[in-house]
Amino acid sequence: MNIELQRVAPSDIEARSMEIITAEMGAHNFSDLELPIVKRVIHTSADFGYQESLVFSKEAIEAGIAAIKAGCTIVTDTQMAWSGVNKRVLEKFGGKAVCFMSDPDVAAEAKSRGETRATVSMERAAQLEGNVIFALGNAPTALVRVCQLAEQGKCNPALVIGVPVGFVNVVESKELVIASDLPHIVARGRKGGSNVAAAICNALLYMASNNERE
Amino acid sequence: MNIELQRVAPSDIEARSMEIITAEMGAHNFSDLELPIVKRVIHTSADFGYQESLVFSKEAIEAGIAAIKAGCTIVTDTQMAWSGVNKRVLEKFGGKAVCFMSDPDVAAEAKSRGETRATVSMERAAQLEGNVIFALGNAPTALVRVCQLAEQGKCNPALVIGVPVGFVNVVESKELVIASDLPHIVARGRKGGSNVAAAICNALLYMASNNERE
Repeated sequence: MNIELQRVAPSDIEARSMEIITAEMGAHNFSDLELPIVKRVIHTSADFGYQESLVFSKEAIEAGIAAIKAGCTIVTDTQMAWSGVNKRVLEKFGGKAVCFMSDPDVAAEAKSRGETRATVSMERAAQLEGNVIFALGNAPTALVRVCQLAEQGKCNPALVIGVPVGFVNVVESKELVIASDLPHIVARGRKGGSNVAAAICNALLYMASNNERE
Repeated sequence: MNIELQRVAPSDIEARSMEIITAEMGAHNFSDLELPIVKRVIHTSADFGYQESLVFSKEAIEAGIAAIKAGCTIVTDTQMAWSGVNKRVLEKFGGKAVCFMSDPDVAAEAKSRGETRATVSMERAAQLEGNVIFALGNAPTALVRVCQLAEQGKCNPALVIGVPVGFVNVVESKELVIASDLPHIVARGRKGGSNVAAAICNALLYMASNNERE
């Protein structure tokens, strides 16, 4: 076999990856707060298309960082996204991550009402106290329900991370959030995912953490 | 807001997505066993590039399905991939999914040896009894270690799902597996991820399940 591996120490792999991403991104107009998010999403996906598709509402990142520092709840729409969120850093700020998707009573209610589990999960999440960041990488029905609940005054998200992936109402659900007044970070188009949702949360967590250290 | 959502019943969303994927894939040369895997990976990523990048070694899929039916262990290199594997179906066959990445003793050993946690995790996994499927969507160091252990006769995977994502040794680690004799399903290039690893496991699980029902 003629395949040569690069020698990179375990602790240097992420930094080296970020250098490659920076070099290949080339010129851009991202702000100092947006850039770490864009880079971490590319890091998790190897997809430079996110340079084009990521949309940030005004002061969305500031709102997310402030929520994290105040000890927020991050709500996800998959166990995968929940798994990907760096809970160690989140808990340092007194925050926690929750996902209601696997709760048996959520499944039962969804079935009886003919809704998705994601829809019912968001209704549960709307009842949470304190600052809530919605990190949605899977279900457009979750994203739509959060928009509706907010419009009805039943939900007041600190930040909506809207990055579902897929083919049915995914594009539309993201445009709904973009057209709303909600603070949002959205990956326009079909792409996204639980990994992208977690990556955006972690970029915010690391920014909150660095600021703390200063 | 002038955004119209399609009316699709919750239970029909996946089928509708698969129809769209089938239509957009167009002509292809995938076998009846390969096709469900390719489609499920596109379903989880909205990335049709996987039509080009997915590589299947001869009878890899048969080996994976046979291992599942025999009650195998699926080893992942992230908690995210572990979360994404359909454990309900896996357990129906007497199988289980494991991930050693968060074990404190794995972290301690990795640190003391200057290796990644993924490398040490694979050494633990090599000691598992019975059929083992390696589903690696994150760490190229894990994939490299599995290849080395197999070459040394210390590990005999039923199937290696090699779909790490990223920039440092990712492409190379995948070429190592492709050049090996190991039964493998690999996404060539930089792209992949925990979501892709889980999607491939689930496609195999659903095929094993359908065959059972026949």
